[in-house]
Amino acid sequence: MNRDDKPDYGRLNSLLGRMLEFNRARNWSQFHNPKDLAISLSLEASEVLEHFQWKSDEEMKSHLAVHGDKVGDELADVLYWVLLMSDYFGIDLPTALDRKMGENEAKYPLVKSKNSHAKYDELA
Amino acid sequence: MNRDDKPDYGRLNSLLGRMLEFNRARNWSQFHNPKDLAISLSLEASEVLEHFQWKSDEEMKSHLAVHGDKVGDELADVLYWVLLMSDYFGIDLPTALDRKMGENEAKYPLVKSKNSHAKYDELA
Amino acid sequence: MNRDDKPDYGRLNSLLGRMLEFNRARNWSQFHNPKDLAISLSLEASEVLEHFQWKSDEEMKSHLAVHGDKVGDELADVLYWVLLMSDYFGIDLPTALDRKMGENEAKYPLVKSKNSHAKYDELA
Amino acid sequence: MNRDDKPDYGRLNSLLGRMLEFNRARNWSQFHNPKDLAISLSLEASEVLEHFQWKSDEEMKSHLAVHGDKVGDELADVLYWVLLMSDYFGIDLPTALDRKMGENEAKYPLVKSKNSHAKYDELA
Repeated sequence: MNRDDKPDYGRLNSLLGRMLEFNRARNWSQFHNPKDLAISLSLEASEVLEHFQWKSDEEMKSHLAVHGDKVGDELADVLYWVLLMSDYFGIDLPTALDRKMGENEAKYPLVKSKNSHAKYDELA
Repeated sequence: MNRDDKPDYGRLNSLLGRMLEFNRARNWSQFHNPKDLAISLSLEASEVLEHFQWKSDEEMKSHLAVHGDKVGDELADVLYWVLLMSDYFGIDLPTALDRKMGENEAKYPLVKSKNSHAKYDELA
Repeated sequence: MNRDDKPDYGRLNSLLGRMLEFNRARNWSQFHNPKDLAISLSLEASEVLEHFQWKSDEEMKSHLAVHGDKVGDELADVLYWVLLMSDYFGIDLPTALDRKMGENEAKYPLVKSKNSHAKYDELA
Repeated sequence: MNRDDKPDYGRLNSLLGRMLEFNRARNWSQFHNPKDLAISLSLEASEVLEHFQWKSDEEMKSHLAVHGDKVGDELADVLYWVLLMSDYFGIDLPTALDRKMGENEAKYPLVKSKNSHAKYDELA
């Protein structure tokens, strides 16, 4: 996409509705249990990772230039399970992310974490 | 949450802005490369999975009743990396999910996939 | 295999030699760095997991009866990377497992851990 | 370890016996099903990967120099589940690895795969 065009995440409200209807029509909720949903999420995250395995920075750049759409598809697969699990578990995900960002801002104070990739419990 | 209250995913537009500013202020883009971003995503998905390991259906239910907020936090962590990677790669994620849903609807025709958990290439 | 025939893990000594020669001949050590080796290990572990996704206990049993060899192949892939990484890092893996078993026996005292799947730090 | 001292993988024969007795004494086979065993394997592989996240080649080298034992512990955890699963599924793992190496040697012919990290189905 043109990097000036911002994606509109508000579209997820209706996309989630479409996903729920997709699953309802196929009567798939009988298979949905937390363990298998979480396995799906983990396997899809692995498929994202597989795109970058063994590649140098330069090779990843070329790969994204040519196959960016495929990577986008894999990220969409991850998002699919995150949204479905959140709905299934009754989790308000934007609220959870909001809370998380508050925690992150507290755990990684600017002065200590600037230019450091240390985890919060290892910050000097 | 009350299951009648729907989360508003439109809030992700401003939350993504907050995430980007969080990273910019710490000068963390120097560490952001596709491989490590994808590793982060995979590790956070594993943390979701860890919640359900060894648990029976009944135990998962109790776990979610007591620790649903923690599971929500882990899902928010996964979402964090999905959003950050999508921005970093210039991927319009809602559009990718829209395209994906179209593919899913084509690959899993109602009449063949109803009540079946077979993958699309194994549908009878 | 006939369950009375025990595998002989001593064969791994020469199999590791064969693996190292396989890699040396292809000049692949130039690609071997800890991060990508660990990614390979993680991706192969995901392929094992994929075999059991969405399946009930009964379905897993049938799957193993029919496709046990494929699952064995995936486990061999995981072992491949564990052995290669251990050699690459100079780790004596049997000694590490020996030490680990000592720790496990101490962390999971019989009287507390019998019939419980709680983690050691949650044992009553 | 001194890199001239080779580990003896024949020790795994008795270590596996110790592992089986460890599990038998705690009556843990009641929890062992293919799905949760495979989840354990995947989660332990993630813990190996976590050691190298965000680190440069130089930082990984230092990390291994200081924390090599910890990495060895994580690799031993992965091996633990590979061995336990193989026993549980009745898989002769050294035989599976032997077969796999034969396949690898056929799929990656020397002349095509030397100095290339392409997957076998993408070899020029």
